[in-house]
Amino acid sequence: MKMTEIKGGVTSAKGFKAAVAAAGIKYKGRTDMAMVISERPCECAGTFTSNIVKAACVQWDQKIVKDGGPMQAVVVNSGIANACTGKEGFDACEATAKAVEDALGIPFGTVGVASTGVIGMQLPVEKLKAGVKMMSGSLSDSGEAGTEASKAIMTTDTVNKEIAVTFEAGEKTVTLGGMSKGSGMIHPNMCTMLGFLTTDISIDKSLMQEALSEVVKDTFNMITVDGDTSTNDTLLLMANGLAGNEKITSKNADYETFKEALFYVCRFLARRMASDGEGATKLFEAKVINAKTKEDARTLSRAIVGSNLSKAAIFGCDANFGRFLCAMGYSGAIFDQNDVELYFKSSEGKLKVFDKGVPLTFDEDEAVRIMKAPEVTVIADMNEGGEEATAWGCDLTYDYVKINADYRS
Amino acid sequence: MKMTEIKGGVTSAKGFKAAVAAAGIKYKGRTDMAMVISERPCECAGTFTSNIVKAACVQWDQKIVKDGGPMQAVVVNSGIANACTGKEGFDACEATAKAVEDALGIPFGTVGVASTGVIGMQLPVEKLKAGVKMMSGSLSDSGEAGTEASKAIMTTDTVNKEIAVTFEAGEKTVTLGGMSKGSGMIHPNMCTMLGFLTTDISIDKSLMQEALSEVVKDTFNMITVDGDTSTNDTLLLMANGLAGNEKITSKNADYETFKEALFYVCRFLARRMASDGEGATKLFEAKVINAKTKEDARTLSRAIVGSNLSKAAIFGCDANFGRFLCAMGYSGAIFDQNDVELYFKSSEGKLKVFDKGVPLTFDEDEAVRIMKAPEVTVIADMNEGGEEATAWGCDLTYDYVKINADYRS
Repeated sequence: MKMTEIKGGVTSAKGFKAAVAAAGIKYKGRTDMAMVISERPCECAGTFTSNIVKAACVQWDQKIVKDGGPMQAVVVNSGIANACTGKEGFDACEATAKAVEDALGIPFGTVGVASTGVIGMQLPVEKLKAGVKMMSGSLSDSGEAGTEASKAIMTTDTVNKEIAVTFEAGEKTVTLGGMSKGSGMIHPNMCTMLGFLTTDISIDKSLMQEALSEVVKDTFNMITVDGDTSTNDTLLLMANGLAGNEKITSKNADYETFKEALFYVCRFLARRMASDGEGATKLFEAKVINAKTKEDARTLSRAIVGSNLSKAAIFGCDANFGRFLCAMGYSGAIFDQNDVELYFKSSEGKLKVFDKGVPLTFDEDEAVRIMKAPEVTVIADMNEGGEEATAWGCDLTYDYVKINADYRS
Repeated sequence: MKMTEIKGGVTSAKGFKAAVAAAGIKYKGRTDMAMVISERPCECAGTFTSNIVKAACVQWDQKIVKDGGPMQAVVVNSGIANACTGKEGFDACEATAKAVEDALGIPFGTVGVASTGVIGMQLPVEKLKAGVKMMSGSLSDSGEAGTEASKAIMTTDTVNKEIAVTFEAGEKTVTLGGMSKGSGMIHPNMCTMLGFLTTDISIDKSLMQEALSEVVKDTFNMITVDGDTSTNDTLLLMANGLAGNEKITSKNADYETFKEALFYVCRFLARRMASDGEGATKLFEAKVINAKTKEDARTLSRAIVGSNLSKAAIFGCDANFGRFLCAMGYSGAIFDQNDVELYFKSSEGKLKVFDKGVPLTFDEDEAVRIMKAPEVTVIADMNEGGEEATAWGCDLTYDYVKINADYRS
């Protein structure tokens, strides 16, 4: 497959524009609202949190996706999550969507909304409506507008997250771009963050949903920061068909190409979120190979990056491999520790530390050197099958505690 | 029921003695081995980690309990966990038990062993054997010997944990005592720590196991420090019958009295472990009331005290109640957020913060005052049934990270 990563984000695909506003929802002196619109109505797909305490905006978007769309715009705010807010919270979603209809004539039932921030606080609806009005007058398809949007949706994130790729489908050049935010309350279960993907491909809606759901399993659902599945996780994909390719209506070569591009984009954004986990100093990757089943491989790799003790050891560059094996042991997957081999790996080298039930003697200095790299991988070779999976997390640091001991103030 | 808490621990019941040794297994200048023996063979019961990566000593003890006992002694070491150590680790268990037989004539098949400390490191068997020999010459039934034993098994614990009670059964005075250790790698799944209970009651073995398994569900299985289920969790209960009561062979009044005493002792030790969680500054209790089922109540309360974000909020005295509701939402229990009421409670007062889907406006200063107490309770009234459960954990602090970033050195 020929795919090219280009500089860009949600405004890269044809017919998409974005704008931001500093609406004063919670933060001072920074943008806290973003809007992305398409020139024309889009087929849409989405995945949402499996937390049964769902934010009002999640319920709003789920209805649009479930009813089959279309979706033409999405309005996002940071600062307040609009979760645990009862009927008043749901009314706020409707008011925001109606403000888009008032300003741009886009039917309010095709306007997605998403929020991230403090739970259990009502949105200041008048500020949101004013923000929508402001943004409606400053929409732009420039790369800068996309970048600004990816910054406006940040909460405790330290870097913005965006990407775009182009590829060929039906002899046309198709563009797929996206942005996401997520730093805390991140744990694999549907998608665990806010993410917005835009593309000009022409594709059947249910095929698009199928591709997205499959890709999410090995990308956004494989990251964790703190084991807390958010009430607001939302990933939306909008396709407006402006690339002019022959519409994809079966799992042909174009479908596979699209899915591959989707995987690339989602994996990029997921890894960026993991390495920007709250307080994180490094990306912590777990690769489980030769597992009995794919589900085992996923479960085991997620358990490794999800363990507080493993994460603290990664922070301290302490090759305390027993903690990784311990986490695998309580993950729920069944295996024999006497089959397992464990390795630490990074740009600085690779070190075997455990060999089929037997702890190896290794050079501690070498272990520290390997673990000091900005990306550290633990490899677990299960020696019992042919399946593999990779999960991503980050280290557990003093700053994680600092950030979360008083998030609201 | 008439039960009296007395000063004491594992040596309080008739016929039990203890001794300790500084065997130099890992620590310098402190005791790191303890031995508890009974004058005569005991009926024994036990619960063990559900982690499938089980330490060698867990496998050793499980076999004794499964084969129906008896058990007459238990040897415990701190510093090295003897987990992930293959055949060499299992041989170390046998060598330790045989050292007891050599020194005291107690058959090695009736000697339990337990270890706690670093995973993935072999035990120094000669040091253990020397320790057993030393301890065999200094066994004592004094309260001080019990206290010293409870100190020798500590790892990152900051306080020792012991308790004893007396009660009447069959017109005889029965004594039940115990000690435990546990501070990190603590998460409810069988029993999640080392605990040793001794009693002089006379009771049928299978009834004793049944009582222990039931009590564990609402005590040791309801605590969490970091969500990491250890490879070494072991709770052993030994009963030597020296109280002279008529043997309990049915679920009569004496059985109920015994079970109640067992609950009291286990709950005490469990709470002590939670409040002494690594780096903890306070006990964090979650009480779920009016739940649909007992299992729901347990699941919900454990999710609240298990959430990193909730624990960080408790540390920061931040009444960020949405995090508690979020944790309940991803716990797996099914409920409607519009039925839930949430309260913070401590010795300083009680404050309602969420009322059936609606966040309440409350006095932040009052919330901080309540949350500054050394024991803080979150109450979730589900308003959908009559079942309740309580779980215990601790706050997540800078010191947790500090302790675990470089535990091995």
